[in-house]
Amino acid sequence: MMAELFAAVEIISAKRDRQELSDPQIDWVIDAYVRGVVADEQMSALLMAILLNGMNSREISRWTDAMINSGERMNWSALDKPTVDKHSTGGVGDKITLPLAPLVAACGAAVPQLSGRGLGHTGGTLDKIESIPGWRASLTNSEMLKVLQDCGAVICAAGSGLAPADKKLYALRDVTGTVPAIPLIASSIMSKKIAEGTSALILDVKTGNGAFMSEPERAKELASAMVELGKRAGVTTRALVTAMDVPLGLTAGNALEVRESVEVLAGGGPADVVELTLLLAREMLDAAGVNGKDPEAALKDGSAMDHWRRMVKSQGGDPDAPLPIAREKKVITAQSDGLISSMNALQVGISAWRLGAGRERQGEKVQAGAGIEIHAKPGALVKKGDPIFTLHTDEAARFERAEAALDGAVVIGTSVAESLPLVITKIV
Amino acid sequence: MMAELFAAVEIISAKRDRQELSDPQIDWVIDAYVRGVVADEQMSALLMAILLNGMNSREISRWTDAMINSGERMNWSALDKPTVDKHSTGGVGDKITLPLAPLVAACGAAVPQLSGRGLGHTGGTLDKIESIPGWRASLTNSEMLKVLQDCGAVICAAGSGLAPADKKLYALRDVTGTVPAIPLIASSIMSKKIAEGTSALILDVKTGNGAFMSEPERAKELASAMVELGKRAGVTTRALVTAMDVPLGLTAGNALEVRESVEVLAGGGPADVVELTLLLAREMLDAAGVNGKDPEAALKDGSAMDHWRRMVKSQGGDPDAPLPIAREKKVITAQSDGLISSMNALQVGISAWRLGAGRERQGEKVQAGAGIEIHAKPGALVKKGDPIFTLHTDEAARFERAEAALDGAVVIGTSVAESLPLVITKIV
Repeated sequence: MMAELFAAVEIISAKRDRQELSDPQIDWVIDAYVRGVVADEQMSALLMAILLNGMNSREISRWTDAMINSGERMNWSALDKPTVDKHSTGGVGDKITLPLAPLVAACGAAVPQLSGRGLGHTGGTLDKIESIPGWRASLTNSEMLKVLQDCGAVICAAGSGLAPADKKLYALRDVTGTVPAIPLIASSIMSKKIAEGTSALILDVKTGNGAFMSEPERAKELASAMVELGKRAGVTTRALVTAMDVPLGLTAGNALEVRESVEVLAGGGPADVVELTLLLAREMLDAAGVNGKDPEAALKDGSAMDHWRRMVKSQGGDPDAPLPIAREKKVITAQSDGLISSMNALQVGISAWRLGAGRERQGEKVQAGAGIEIHAKPGALVKKGDPIFTLHTDEAARFERAEAALDGAVVIGTSVAESLPLVITKIV
Repeated sequence: MMAELFAAVEIISAKRDRQELSDPQIDWVIDAYVRGVVADEQMSALLMAILLNGMNSREISRWTDAMINSGERMNWSALDKPTVDKHSTGGVGDKITLPLAPLVAACGAAVPQLSGRGLGHTGGTLDKIESIPGWRASLTNSEMLKVLQDCGAVICAAGSGLAPADKKLYALRDVTGTVPAIPLIASSIMSKKIAEGTSALILDVKTGNGAFMSEPERAKELASAMVELGKRAGVTTRALVTAMDVPLGLTAGNALEVRESVEVLAGGGPADVVELTLLLAREMLDAAGVNGKDPEAALKDGSAMDHWRRMVKSQGGDPDAPLPIAREKKVITAQSDGLISSMNALQVGISAWRLGAGRERQGEKVQAGAGIEIHAKPGALVKKGDPIFTLHTDEAARFERAEAALDGAVVIGTSVAESLPLVITKIV
């Protein structure tokens, strides 16, 4: 047995006592945790000390590098196009990745989008796209490269070889109350995105009641930390802090969101989804150095839709197959006449989750058809009895708790409540 | 399976966010930890949050009660004498319990002294007294009562039924950097002492370089927290904050300290050991409400020694058997002429530990004969070559690291350095 460079207690105690961790300490503790030499109960104590006492930018950067170095780093130099990816911190009805990846591909950049599954009230891209019959999320590295070459975009699961330290840490943070720490969130996201090998990255950091970072100031802090990590790693990185106080679009739920995404790719879809998709597409193309392409035209002329269909097919899916529909429906109506003043994104997200669109524990199955259709959003005039939501689920027993989650989510009054602008700030 | 009242993450998150924990939350988390429903990695995150964000006095008191309630609470109502105990937070050469318990018994109070073993540089009472051939530390509850009735004092190991939550938490704190938190130290000590069933308790809280609480202010804070816990539980509790910047007496090590303790019981012994023993004896007798007995007389007239011999015999030991002697010795001498200005207690403690008097891990054996004899203390005039220390060990290979630990421990100059007074403060 090789002697260990450090003792875990030493490193925990240093951070507990507000000391900076050295590069060798950080490298060792991540590596030793993956090897099982640092125990879960030691790492969770360290994570809590990091959450409460912080890390400076050098420490965060080294922590991220150590997580990247725990696994493989992908390489797309075989492609003849620049690579660019987008990451969203997650919101209710946030299906933007689905139309965005083929749209940017249609404009000439390559989009290697390694995504995750949903946990809690925000959905996961893989859960959504998996509602397409036949579609496979798990690809080998050479399959990924082939889809990227053929279609310009690939949306798939991050392989187990990518930042395995992050996977182990993420599962631990989930059960130990150590999720909401900016150094840990930033390093978790960026280790995967840097290991994924993209040359440019646009971050969509959500804020508002439906986002994990409900405070705009905290969202900006997270965005800045991530942009710095990306730059240090040589990835052209920019962040938009965007609104998540109202659900995005008119659907929340897996197949429901795919349908809405296909509408956007067909040149239609809800205005807010189209606006954010175009905004992010322009940022991605600019960051990738691809000029002179108009994403709006690519939505209108069908080229984005072509890329979508090719991508779905090349991952085993049938873009023409009917999407799953939930067995049970229930309409929720307006309780008075008036103007919809506000709609709480968090409550809509929790309701969709309770209908079966999300999971309570890692590894659970989600319902493809479950979720919420939104018939009227803030600014709409409604009469008592008009439909506001349609709830979808395969199990009628879920309606009661899902409806309870919506209690007070919609306020009907005489004016529209102040809400966040779509883009709150941009960090470059 | 019964539904659980709380989720661990909820409680961890509350303390992480500087909220007070409610009584039911504290009761549940301790109980659920003992049952294995709260995992080690969850408890260690909570402990780090407590260490960094603190607990108020209600929370500390409830935490202590929950640990007491995890096991049995002993009861000495069958005795016809008041019970009183002493607890020291540990120091180098701190053998005071050995002469003190029989001395107080000789003066008419009953002393149910449930002790621990050493870990780190301070020795453990059980390790010391176990160097007496035949002596047994583990007694059943009825054996304890019998020894107490027959001898007025018993020194033995706390049974596994006493505050089992504390045992599990202590082992976890040791490996997760969560030892030095006043709420956790105070509740750990006091849960055992309250469960032990003593009616009165004197706390000897050590401070100075050789103590766990090297800062006098922190030692006072710990002393106050413990006195409050004792009072809330109906135990007459007082604390002395005492000096541990110089080793106590002239020995550090198991059999060496027993020999010095027997000298004190015989009416001799080093002045500082005698002074602290008498001081603590008077406090204990006063707290127990036993008046009119002079402990100094009990040392002179042999009655304390009689109680010691009875106690040792009734636990299987032979008070007349020769004590173990280490196989190897090495004398360390003065490097110049002059006055001994200071002697670092921590360094002496570490050196004795390295000689084999202490253990590195729980469960290791200690050497009965190992340790250090001190030939000259601060204030003594020495000539170059005069002996200062004799190191004792069964393994000559240990001398090198033990001697290295003493490097710079003794300063020889022209005046005595300022040191802490024996009693720094008293908290009632």
